[in-house]
Amino acid sequence: MNIPSAFWLVPVASVVALGMAWYFFRTMMQADEGTPRMREIAGHVRRGAMAYLKQQYRVVLFVFIVLALIFAFMAYGLHAQNTWVPFAFLTGGFFSGLAGFFGMKTATYASARTANAARKSLDGGLRIAFRSGAVMGLTVVGLGLLDIALWFLILNKFDNGGLISITTTMLTFGMGASTQALFARVGGGIYTKAADVGADIVGKVEADIPEDDPRNPATIADNVGDNVGDVAGMGADLYESYCGSILSTAALGATAFAMVPDMQLRAVIAPMLIAAVGVFLSILGIYLVRTKEGATMRDLLRSLSLGTNVSALLIAVATFAILYLLGIENWLGLSFSVITGLAAGVIIGQATEYYTSHSYKPTQKISEAGLTGSATVIIKGIGTGMISTCIPVITIGVAIMLSYLCANGFDSSMSAGALSKGLYGIGIAAVGMLSTLGITLATDAYGPIADNAGGNAEMSELGEEVRHRTDALDALGNTTAATGKGFAIGSAALTALALLASYIEEVKIAMERADMTLTNLKGDIIQASQATIPDFMNYFQVNLMNPRVLVGAFIGAMAAFLFCGLTMEAVGRAAQKMVEEVRRQFHEIKGILEGKATPDYGRCVEISTRAAQHEMIFPSLLAIAIPIVVGMVLGVAGVLGLLVGGLAGGFTLAVFMANAGGAWDNAKKMVEEGNFGGKGSFAHKATIVGDTVGDPFKDTSGPSLNILIKLMSMVSIVMAGLTIAFA
Amino acid sequence: MNIPSAFWLVPVASVVALGMAWYFFRTMMQADEGTPRMREIAGHVRRGAMAYLKQQYRVVLFVFIVLALIFAFMAYGLHAQNTWVPFAFLTGGFFSGLAGFFGMKTATYASARTANAARKSLDGGLRIAFRSGAVMGLTVVGLGLLDIALWFLILNKFDNGGLISITTTMLTFGMGASTQALFARVGGGIYTKAADVGADIVGKVEADIPEDDPRNPATIADNVGDNVGDVAGMGADLYESYCGSILSTAALGATAFAMVPDMQLRAVIAPMLIAAVGVFLSILGIYLVRTKEGATMRDLLRSLSLGTNVSALLIAVATFAILYLLGIENWLGLSFSVITGLAAGVIIGQATEYYTSHSYKPTQKISEAGLTGSATVIIKGIGTGMISTCIPVITIGVAIMLSYLCANGFDSSMSAGALSKGLYGIGIAAVGMLSTLGITLATDAYGPIADNAGGNAEMSELGEEVRHRTDALDALGNTTAATGKGFAIGSAALTALALLASYIEEVKIAMERADMTLTNLKGDIIQASQATIPDFMNYFQVNLMNPRVLVGAFIGAMAAFLFCGLTMEAVGRAAQKMVEEVRRQFHEIKGILEGKATPDYGRCVEISTRAAQHEMIFPSLLAIAIPIVVGMVLGVAGVLGLLVGGLAGGFTLAVFMANAGGAWDNAKKMVEEGNFGGKGSFAHKATIVGDTVGDPFKDTSGPSLNILIKLMSMVSIVMAGLTIAFA
Repeated sequence: MNIPSAFWLVPVASVVALGMAWYFFRTMMQADEGTPRMREIAGHVRRGAMAYLKQQYRVVLFVFIVLALIFAFMAYGLHAQNTWVPFAFLTGGFFSGLAGFFGMKTATYASARTANAARKSLDGGLRIAFRSGAVMGLTVVGLGLLDIALWFLILNKFDNGGLISITTTMLTFGMGASTQALFARVGGGIYTKAADVGADIVGKVEADIPEDDPRNPATIADNVGDNVGDVAGMGADLYESYCGSILSTAALGATAFAMVPDMQLRAVIAPMLIAAVGVFLSILGIYLVRTKEGATMRDLLRSLSLGTNVSALLIAVATFAILYLLGIENWLGLSFSVITGLAAGVIIGQATEYYTSHSYKPTQKISEAGLTGSATVIIKGIGTGMISTCIPVITIGVAIMLSYLCANGFDSSMSAGALSKGLYGIGIAAVGMLSTLGITLATDAYGPIADNAGGNAEMSELGEEVRHRTDALDALGNTTAATGKGFAIGSAALTALALLASYIEEVKIAMERADMTLTNLKGDIIQASQATIPDFMNYFQVNLMNPRVLVGAFIGAMAAFLFCGLTMEAVGRAAQKMVEEVRRQFHEIKGILEGKATPDYGRCVEISTRAAQHEMIFPSLLAIAIPIVVGMVLGVAGVLGLLVGGLAGGFTLAVFMANAGGAWDNAKKMVEEGNFGGKGSFAHKATIVGDTVGDPFKDTSGPSLNILIKLMSMVSIVMAGLTIAFA
Repeated sequence: MNIPSAFWLVPVASVVALGMAWYFFRTMMQADEGTPRMREIAGHVRRGAMAYLKQQYRVVLFVFIVLALIFAFMAYGLHAQNTWVPFAFLTGGFFSGLAGFFGMKTATYASARTANAARKSLDGGLRIAFRSGAVMGLTVVGLGLLDIALWFLILNKFDNGGLISITTTMLTFGMGASTQALFARVGGGIYTKAADVGADIVGKVEADIPEDDPRNPATIADNVGDNVGDVAGMGADLYESYCGSILSTAALGATAFAMVPDMQLRAVIAPMLIAAVGVFLSILGIYLVRTKEGATMRDLLRSLSLGTNVSALLIAVATFAILYLLGIENWLGLSFSVITGLAAGVIIGQATEYYTSHSYKPTQKISEAGLTGSATVIIKGIGTGMISTCIPVITIGVAIMLSYLCANGFDSSMSAGALSKGLYGIGIAAVGMLSTLGITLATDAYGPIADNAGGNAEMSELGEEVRHRTDALDALGNTTAATGKGFAIGSAALTALALLASYIEEVKIAMERADMTLTNLKGDIIQASQATIPDFMNYFQVNLMNPRVLVGAFIGAMAAFLFCGLTMEAVGRAAQKMVEEVRRQFHEIKGILEGKATPDYGRCVEISTRAAQHEMIFPSLLAIAIPIVVGMVLGVAGVLGLLVGGLAGGFTLAVFMANAGGAWDNAKKMVEEGNFGGKGSFAHKATIVGDTVGDPFKDTSGPSLNILIKLMSMVSIVMAGLTIAFA
């Protein structure tokens, strides 16, 4: 097939993104790393982080080899899968791991430099931290587009199955990215929260020493954790979201326009082009984030918001142009689908901000509950988190309906055409939300860098002011990151929906491969590829009275809870070990609390590493196993029930956990700012308990759920051949 | 239609149950109420409880009048509903309220008498408490069967619409019961936990005085709360479950055998007969719970288990006989469906026991986490609760599949006949689980009576030994109640499924009433009543790719979280007020902590009453409003999505909350028994925080969810006419 010239924008954008990332990295490296003590601490953290990442990749590599062998057997032995799948799967995992690795490397080099720059001024700190965050953002989108472009070119040349086959095969590299992301989020999440919770419980609550105090043996582990969890984990996570949304939308485009060969190719590359243009707009946005010497907090906030808002606004405008120039059918409607997605992202972001920032009532009330003790703080936080699910869910509901209807010209008939075009609209809305990931991820990723810089400043005893500045940078990031989070959550839900539709296509392909026919609604026996969605649904009895669908939905909702429970328990267990170790050191190493003896940091790093290593395996494998088992026992109807139950239950649970955690965090900060008794008060101790409970909520279990939902869909898609053979 | 003579067993069983309840009540009243101090305290609690119940019924009455007027308008004004509906709705609410009222009256008379009997011996205490619990159990089943029998006879005489019309009309009295139950659970739950949490936080944690200490101003309110929440709330709740399962199964029977008039009537009365026989077996079981003078704990436990196990075993056997004698088609398969349900109940009960009793590892680990503080206790408890959803969900999944397949002769074809017969099997499995409610509720309801007796003993200063005995009775109840809880949770899920199917029937009836036709799978235009389930599903596009279904599922899962969040917040707010009041009294009333001055109990009772009153309204109305709004906006497909999402998400959330709460409670008890430092230790304080957080989990939000799920279905059923008119 002839590749249209517009497509070449995709590899170009990828190369530009990677080049810019490299440039920002070099610039950052030229900055001064500060005093010898600062270098030393940064070195500790860097080595700890790299050592952990190597360990994690070793485990993940093993899992990848096993899975790739299974896929190879399915493809070459059973002929139940496309032969490109094992390779595509591996590259997805590899690039995702690479994005995490580069992001973390940058972050660990940037923290001391940020702290050092913050010794002079706030804006100096921002410049280094934000540009380092941008390295991560641009690496993720650059590698993502590279992987997409390469595979599209390869398959276009060698795979003769047509665009539906090509796009569904490419989805399997999404599965590689999802698998990598799950391990990164779960392992990194357990690592960081074991260290954080352990350090806080003994340090802040029992020994009354501040955060990141060098006397606390778990401090280095805590700082390593920020890097492996918040940076490397987040990088892999968003790499997966980014590629997942583009790939699933491409697959939906191939199906929706299967009857119009010319239009089909345009529909497939449209999401890639939106993403490619988004790269340039992100870079523009990054350059808009300029700081003047001696800038105030307000200036910085304005400049950060300017960058993200301009990028988002321009991508909205650009979408109209891209889709019009591409000459795609109903370009206007599809563009409005994208607008719907962007609007939904903004609303969810604002709602997140409302429920988790202490500028608003909900979090203020949690702080106030601290006056009556930790139990009421927990009750209030859980209540707030649960209530906070309302706006995001309704927003997503409206976005689903609107982007669906805009894309199919307000045809609510559920005819085959209306349905598949509408679903394509849902997918493209998700792509729009993630297209400016280059800059939104930069604002997100620079938070942990500033946090680590603060840790470095504290441990290097640079004084209150530097710490204040790094804290301010961190807070700044939290404010602007809300929109980014809204986009991430919203696009995950929409992408998961798109994957649901891709699953149906994959089942059809698997049936064709196995020479199976089906009976359509009129009672005629037809080829699977000719079946419309209503035919398919009726043939596989995927309706809500089929007990298999219902049982699947139950298991899906349960899987989300089970997965969260396992990761929560893992953090609890690991944190308990950390607490015991810190207590032991306080007890056995004389003079540690007086600052006369150095704690054994290495022992704590080791505990976190081993715990994360050990604990991430079971929940991750479970996430892969559940859809396979459900598929073999309950068939296609059961799998679709599972995915819908998992999506509805998991999305709500994820929002609850993320927001409850965020609200507890800020409720504590509010008390620390001098409210309800301030630092050291009864209310402070109570809100610290809330913050500690919230840590695994918002940084381990909650974020992993977003991946879980999509990974279950990905596994179902890749294993569709097996489901067909068994059920 | 001729009523078969076997039907008369139903009213007979009802009268016998009510007669036995009256007899047990009289016997209990003849026992001595103890010292003047004991009478005085019991009087306080009784008056507080009755005053609250009156207030609650006043609010509920108002809601009922409004809803009845709406139904009357729908029935007589719009002709969009059966004309009997407003009356059936009111009697359901009335009888449910009556069951709660009688249960609570009995409990408030029994507590001092139980304490007084426990002054002499353990078995004396058990006899009074258990028989009083039996009053509640028998009143619930007696009133339930009375309502069912009366309406069946009335409608059979005056409604000429046939059995499908009669049984779906009867379902609306289930909606009355659900509405009443929701208010009772939410209002009672908020009342009891506001008092409990408030009393614990200031009493146990801050002032270091024991539970139920008369120096604590919130003690009376706490004891009143046990009655209005755990007794009256539970009574209304299980009345609803009991009637709901029988009525929805009857409705499914009417549909499944619509083509065989003779068989149809048998299928309708089969669930009623199983319930009626269950009444006699429950009474038999109650009499098997005999205690000898000087019986040990082990004796008592054996005797209690004997009662419940024999009843459960006999109903399993009796089902075969009932269905065989009734001559129903596939009686053997249907009997096995019941066995499946009973087995599922036992397994869920055992799993609950495993995850919440401190004889097993999960709860022991929560206690152990107390050594590292309250944050790890909370993390561990939430983790355990989430993991504990796995076994119940899988068990319910297996039970759904098996009872479905047993009932339709292992026909998995999803043909219209196989589907409706299978669904009838799921319903009848739920009926089997609840048929011995007379005795299982007795073992459940006697717990709060023993608890209150303990409160009375403490406040009357009867000494350690009496308190020990009442505590032992309470613990005994907790052990045997596990199976009862398993049955209650499991049957709720199965009943909700049955209601889903009833909704489809009701939509068809509404369409017939509105003279609407539909197009079947073959493309012919047919009467709605002639549509099979696959026709219906295809016509309304109720498949998993329809965005309305998906959005509905999202909203359903979110509704469960939102509802829990609102009730959690309500408890948090009310508890905070209580804490402030108790602190104020400790501060302002001199000599209160030395026992020299009497606290102002009345003020605390008032706070709880007003808070419960005020706070129960919004969440309850929301539960009624959501399905109506979804129906009007997203139509039939959206409603079915909502119900499935609500069921899958809500069930899992309910199990999580109930088990986490139970585990925290017992983890605290384990520490109090002298482990990990015992009473007053660091671990004790930490586990008290867990217990306090767990209170609203297990006694307010969790139990209300079971009702929420079913109420949403009931509302959808009753409002089907409106949905059809709008969407």
